[in-house]
Amino acid sequence: MEPKAKPTWIWYPGDFEVWLGNRFNSRRTERGAMFPPFWKHDSHWPMVTFAKTVDIDSDETLTVEAEGRFNFSVDGRLQSALVVPKGRHELSFKVWNQSAPPALFVSGATIVTDASWQVTFEDKVWIDECGVAHGAGTYVPAGSWTFDSADTPPSHYRLACREERPAQVERLLNGGLLVDFGRETFGYLCLKVNCSAGTQCALAIYYGESREEALDAAHCETLDRVVADQLLASPVVRLDSKAFRYVSIEMEGGVGVDDVWMDYEYSPFDPARSGSFGCSDEELNHIWQVAAYTLDLTTREFFVDGIKRDRWTWSGDAIQSYLMNYYLRFDNECVKRTIRQLRGKDPVTSHVNTIMDYSFYWVQSVMDYYLYTGDKHFLREIYAKMVTLMDYVLSRTDASGMASAQPDDWIFVDWTDFPMHKRGALCFEQILLYKSLQTMAQCTALIDMPVGYGKARDSRELLDTYSDLAGRLAKRINGTFWSQEAGAYFHGLADGMIDRQVTKFPNMFAILYGLASKEQAERIMSSVMLNPDVPAITTPYMRFYELETLCMMGLQEEVLQQMKDYWGGMLRLGATTFWEKYNPLEQGREHLAMYGRPYGKSLCHAWGASPIYLLGRYFLGVQPTMPGYSDFTVRPTLGGLQWMRGAVPTPYGFIRVSMDNHEVRVSSDGGYGTLIVGGKRYAVKAGEEVRVEL
Amino acid sequence: MEPKAKPTWIWYPGDFEVWLGNRFNSRRTERGAMFPPFWKHDSHWPMVTFAKTVDIDSDETLTVEAEGRFNFSVDGRLQSALVVPKGRHELSFKVWNQSAPPALFVSGATIVTDASWQVTFEDKVWIDECGVAHGAGTYVPAGSWTFDSADTPPSHYRLACREERPAQVERLLNGGLLVDFGRETFGYLCLKVNCSAGTQCALAIYYGESREEALDAAHCETLDRVVADQLLASPVVRLDSKAFRYVSIEMEGGVGVDDVWMDYEYSPFDPARSGSFGCSDEELNHIWQVAAYTLDLTTREFFVDGIKRDRWTWSGDAIQSYLMNYYLRFDNECVKRTIRQLRGKDPVTSHVNTIMDYSFYWVQSVMDYYLYTGDKHFLREIYAKMVTLMDYVLSRTDASGMASAQPDDWIFVDWTDFPMHKRGALCFEQILLYKSLQTMAQCTALIDMPVGYGKARDSRELLDTYSDLAGRLAKRINGTFWSQEAGAYFHGLADGMIDRQVTKFPNMFAILYGLASKEQAERIMSSVMLNPDVPAITTPYMRFYELETLCMMGLQEEVLQQMKDYWGGMLRLGATTFWEKYNPLEQGREHLAMYGRPYGKSLCHAWGASPIYLLGRYFLGVQPTMPGYSDFTVRPTLGGLQWMRGAVPTPYGFIRVSMDNHEVRVSSDGGYGTLIVGGKRYAVKAGEEVRVEL
Repeated sequence: MEPKAKPTWIWYPGDFEVWLGNRFNSRRTERGAMFPPFWKHDSHWPMVTFAKTVDIDSDETLTVEAEGRFNFSVDGRLQSALVVPKGRHELSFKVWNQSAPPALFVSGATIVTDASWQVTFEDKVWIDECGVAHGAGTYVPAGSWTFDSADTPPSHYRLACREERPAQVERLLNGGLLVDFGRETFGYLCLKVNCSAGTQCALAIYYGESREEALDAAHCETLDRVVADQLLASPVVRLDSKAFRYVSIEMEGGVGVDDVWMDYEYSPFDPARSGSFGCSDEELNHIWQVAAYTLDLTTREFFVDGIKRDRWTWSGDAIQSYLMNYYLRFDNECVKRTIRQLRGKDPVTSHVNTIMDYSFYWVQSVMDYYLYTGDKHFLREIYAKMVTLMDYVLSRTDASGMASAQPDDWIFVDWTDFPMHKRGALCFEQILLYKSLQTMAQCTALIDMPVGYGKARDSRELLDTYSDLAGRLAKRINGTFWSQEAGAYFHGLADGMIDRQVTKFPNMFAILYGLASKEQAERIMSSVMLNPDVPAITTPYMRFYELETLCMMGLQEEVLQQMKDYWGGMLRLGATTFWEKYNPLEQGREHLAMYGRPYGKSLCHAWGASPIYLLGRYFLGVQPTMPGYSDFTVRPTLGGLQWMRGAVPTPYGFIRVSMDNHEVRVSSDGGYGTLIVGGKRYAVKAGEEVRVEL
Repeated sequence: MEPKAKPTWIWYPGDFEVWLGNRFNSRRTERGAMFPPFWKHDSHWPMVTFAKTVDIDSDETLTVEAEGRFNFSVDGRLQSALVVPKGRHELSFKVWNQSAPPALFVSGATIVTDASWQVTFEDKVWIDECGVAHGAGTYVPAGSWTFDSADTPPSHYRLACREERPAQVERLLNGGLLVDFGRETFGYLCLKVNCSAGTQCALAIYYGESREEALDAAHCETLDRVVADQLLASPVVRLDSKAFRYVSIEMEGGVGVDDVWMDYEYSPFDPARSGSFGCSDEELNHIWQVAAYTLDLTTREFFVDGIKRDRWTWSGDAIQSYLMNYYLRFDNECVKRTIRQLRGKDPVTSHVNTIMDYSFYWVQSVMDYYLYTGDKHFLREIYAKMVTLMDYVLSRTDASGMASAQPDDWIFVDWTDFPMHKRGALCFEQILLYKSLQTMAQCTALIDMPVGYGKARDSRELLDTYSDLAGRLAKRINGTFWSQEAGAYFHGLADGMIDRQVTKFPNMFAILYGLASKEQAERIMSSVMLNPDVPAITTPYMRFYELETLCMMGLQEEVLQQMKDYWGGMLRLGATTFWEKYNPLEQGREHLAMYGRPYGKSLCHAWGASPIYLLGRYFLGVQPTMPGYSDFTVRPTLGGLQWMRGAVPTPYGFIRVSMDNHEVRVSSDGGYGTLIVGGKRYAVKAGEEVRVEL
C-alpha cells in the first residue's frame, strides 16, 4: 500500500491574502483610533467550488473539515455521505463563508486536498430540459501553503511569538514606569497588574520608538488605555501589538504593575537558509546587521513599510523589500502574499495604493519575483491581474500615450525637500510606464493563456499591443524630455510646456530601466547624478535607486562612502533600526518629526534596509540573469574594502562569494553561473568552487 | 427648537442586497444538503466611509451605533470623542465589517444618519510633504430603508412571521404523522416533542407540496432529520424554513410529538394599498385570488421563482414578478432589492444567472421599474451597472453585432416539449438584445452623468453607441430572420445557415418589443400565433408573453378562454397555488414530475401568477405611459365578461376602473390619464370620476 498522501488546506488563490490584508491594514491605530487605508478593500469570494477528478481502486470514506458550510457532490450529484465509490469520479465541494475565505481540508486513504485541486468562484452549471447538468466554469489551481493540519485552517494564521524582557525599567517622577526594551521591537505588551481599588483604576500607556515619544503623552503616535473592567478581569493584561522601544506607563486609581514584558511577534526564518555578508569594515558590518533587523521587523504577514505608524502595505516600499529579501531571507511566500494583497480584486478602480508610480512598481515586482525565483506557477496565477491593472492604466493615458496626472491620481515620486510640481505628464512616470509595458510584453510572451472576462483576449494580440506601445513610448520620451544640451531628461510636460527642471528621478530610472543609451547614461552621470547643483535625494526610498544607479555605473567606492555617511550617521545617533528619512543637518528631536507631527517619522522603515540589496547585488555582485538563477552572473567588487565574504540564497541553495585584493572564490549549489572579474569570464558550476587570483 | 431629526441605518447602496442575497440563495437545500447557485457570489465592500457636511449652531454630542468597527473624523482629523463643534464641518465615519455590510446609525440633536449622507468604498485620500491630506474619493448617496431604530440594524433584517395551525393531522399506519396545512405555505415547522428514551431518539421529517411527495421518503425534495441532541435540548423544535402543504413525520427511538404547527413567514403588505380585481366570472375571480397568493408566497426578501426547490433569484422569473407586483402590492422595495441582488458587483464575468436572455431581461426590468414608479434616484444608482453589464454583452457579440452563443452561455428561451436547438445566433436573443440597446439609449438620455472606472465615459458617446447599435441590429434582424413568404421570423443562424424553424418565441417578442411593423405583426398573428401547426408553448413563463401578445393585438376574448382552460385546469386538479408548468394531457403523479425527478416540479411558481398582470394591464387596461404614472392610459376591455371592477396601485394612490356592457367608470388619485374606449379618448383627472356610457 502506498503511503497516505498528505492533505493541506486549500482556498481560492489570492483570497487568503485579500482577507488577511483587510485585517492587517485595519490594525493600524492612531492614538487609539482605528486607522485603515483610504483605498478599496476587497473581499474573498464567499462561495467557491473545489473540484478534483479521482480514480480509486476501492471505496473511500473522507474526513472533511471546512471553513464555512459545505456540500459534497460526486459526478455532479449531491451526496449525503462522505463516501467516494471506487472508479473514476469527479468530486466537488462547494464551500460558503462570508466572513473568512472558504477553505477545505479533506483527508482520505488516497484522496486529500492539495495544490492539484481546482477551484472556481462560479461553476456556471446549467440544466437542460431533461434535468442534465452542463458545466462551463472557470477553474484555476487552488491556493495552498503550509496549513497541513486539520486544526490549522488559514483563518487561524498568526505570526510566531516569543517572550522578551525589558532591558531596563525606570521609575518616573510622576510614579509611572518607563520601560526600555533595549532596541526597536514589535509585539504585544504584557503587564502583571494588581488592582486593589475598584472601578476607578486605569492604566495609560504611551509607546515610543524614542524615549522622547514615550514620555510625550500628548503627542506620541500610539497609546493604550486599560480600564477597570480589563484590569479586574485578569491579573495579566496583553495589549494589541505595537512598535516601540520605550513604553511609558501611568497608573491611576490604585493599580499596581508587578511585571512588564512583551510577546515579540515575528515572521520566522531559517538562519541556515539566509544570506550573509561580512567585510573588513566594522561599521559596514554593523550597517548590514541593523539593516537585516530592520527588514526582519518589517517582514510580517506582508512586507510593510513602517511598523509603528503605517502598518499598511505600499507597493513602492514593497518592491524594495522584495529585492532586499532576495539577498537576506529569500522569504518568497511573503513576496507572493504581498503582491496578491496589493493588487486585490478586479475591477481596478484606482492605482495600487492610489499612486500612479505604485501601479508601475507592482507590475515590475512580478517580473523581479519571477527572475529571482523562477516560479512560473505564480506568474500564471497573477498574469490576468497584470492585464486588468494595465487596462486601467492604458484607459487613462492621453492622446500621446502618456500617463498624465488625473484628479484621482496620487503622483508620488518621492518626498522632496525642494519644490517639484507633479502636474501633467512627468518624465519619471513615463519611464516607469515604459518599463511596465516592456514587462507586460515579456510576461505575455512567457505565458500562453487566454485571459479576461467577456471575450477571452488573444495573447498574441496583447503581446503586439504592449510591445508596440513600449516602443512608441520610448521614442516619445526621448523626443519629448531628453535634452542633448543639458545631458538630462527634463522633469515634465504640463499645459503644453516642457518643465526644464532637472531632478535625479527620471534620469536615474532611465539608466536603471535601460531607456538611456550608453552615451546618454554617461552624460546623465556627469550632468545629473554626480552634479552637486542637482538637488540631493534625502529619502532612503529614492537613495535605493540612486545608489543602485551608481553601482551599475561602477561607482562602488563612492557608494561605500555614502553608505558609511548616511546609514553610519543614523547609527552614530543610536539607531537600532533604520529610519524613514535621515537628514544629517537636523538636530535632536528634529530627527523624530515628519508630516508636521513631532514623532511622525518612522524609525523602523523597510526602505532603510537597502544596504542588504546593494551589498549583495553590487558588492558580492550576485545577479540572476535567467529565471530562478538557472543562469546567473557574479561580478564581485570590493569598492575599497580589504576583503568581503557572503552568501546569497537561491532556489538551489546559495551562491557563496569571498574576495580580497588577491583572490576571488565563488561556489554555487545550482544553476549555471559566470564569474566576471578583471575583465574575464569564468564558468561557475554547481558544487565546484572557482578560484581566481587577481 | 426644531423637532429632532429621525435617524436611520445607512450603508453602501446595493451592499445590503448582495449580502442578503448570499444568505438567501444558500438557504436552498436538496434532501438536507446546502444547494446554492452555480454563479458568482459577490461581497459587500468591507470598508466604507460615510460622510456628511454639517453646519450647526452649538456643539453636538453624537450617539453612534455601527455594524463593524469604526472611527470618526471631523474635517479630516481623527477624533477620540464623539463631539462635533459648532460651525460648518465635514464629518466622516469609516466602518469596517468583513461578515456583514458596514452600517451606521448616528443620532444627535440635529445630526442624524439618513439618505442625505454620502458613502464611498475608497476615499482616496493622499498626503503631501507637509502632511496635508487631499481627497478625491468617489462618493455616492448612502443606501437606507426603514431600519429606523438603533436596535434594528440591517443585518438583523427578517421577514414577518405568524403562527399557523394545521388543517388536519393524520396518524399513519407506520405510527408516524401526516400533517396537512390545508394549502401551499412557507415557513418554519414547529414541533413540541417529548423524548423519554435517550440518545437514539430522532425525527425524520419529509416535506411535500403534494401528499404524494410528503409520503415518499425516498424521493421528496426537502427533508429534515432531528437528532437526539436537538430533541433533548428543548421541548420545542423549530426547523429551517421550507415550502410545503404536507409534512410527514416519522418518530424513532421513543420520541413523541405532542403538537405540530408552523411559523408562516411572509413579506408584509398593506391590503389598503393593494390592487384588486373582481368580475362576473367566479372561476376567473378564483384564478385571480390564487394567483395573488402565489405571488405573495414568492415575494420574499427577493422575488423568487419557486419557494420549494429553487429559492434562488432568477432574472427571467423576476421581471414577470415585478410586472405582476405593479398590479398587486406595488412593493417597489422588493423590486429594487431583487434588481440589485441579481446584478451584484462588477466585474461582470457571466450573464445574469449565467443566462444570456436573463441579462437582457435585467436591463429591461430597470426601465419597467422606472416607468411604473418614476424613481429616478434608483435609475441614477443602477445606471453604471447597466453600462458594465452591457459592456460584457457587447464584448461577446460577433462580427455582425449579434449575440451568438458562446461556450459559457446558457441560452435558455424556454423549456420546450419540441426539439429546438440553441446554437449560433438565435433570432429570439437578437430581439432581446435590440430591446436592451434601445433601453440603454433611453436611460442614457435620461441620466446625464459620467460613468465607469478608468477614464470616465462620456454619456453623449454612450448614447450614440447604443442608438446606433440598436438601429443597425434592427435592420439586421429583419434582413436576416424575417421571411415575407412565411410571414414569420425564423429561428436562428448557425454555421452560416438560417434555421427555418418557426416558433412563437421570436415572433411574439418582435411584436411586444416593437420590432415588427404593423403589417409584420398582423402576418405573425395569422401565420404563427394563431397557427395550430406552430408548436404550443407549455410553460406559464412564456405563456405570459404569448397571452400579452394576444392582448396587445386585441384578442382578450381568446385570452380569457385560455386563462380559464389553463389556470382553471390547475384549480380543477386542486391547486392552491399555480405551478411551474402544467400540461392538461398529463395524468396523476405526472403533474408532479419535472427535470427527471418525481417531485421536481414547483407547485408554487411566480411565473404562474401572470393573470394578475394580464387582467390589470389588458382587461382593466391600466398602463403608465410616462414615468411613475405621471401620464397613463386606461383601455378597459371586458373580453367576454359581463362586468369587472378593480383598482391598480400607482405612486399617487390608485386608478380605479369599473365596466359592464353599459358603462365605464374611471377615477384616479393623481397623474394625467386618458381613458380610451369605443374609439374615443377621455381625459382622466385626479379626483374626478369619468363615466362613459357605451
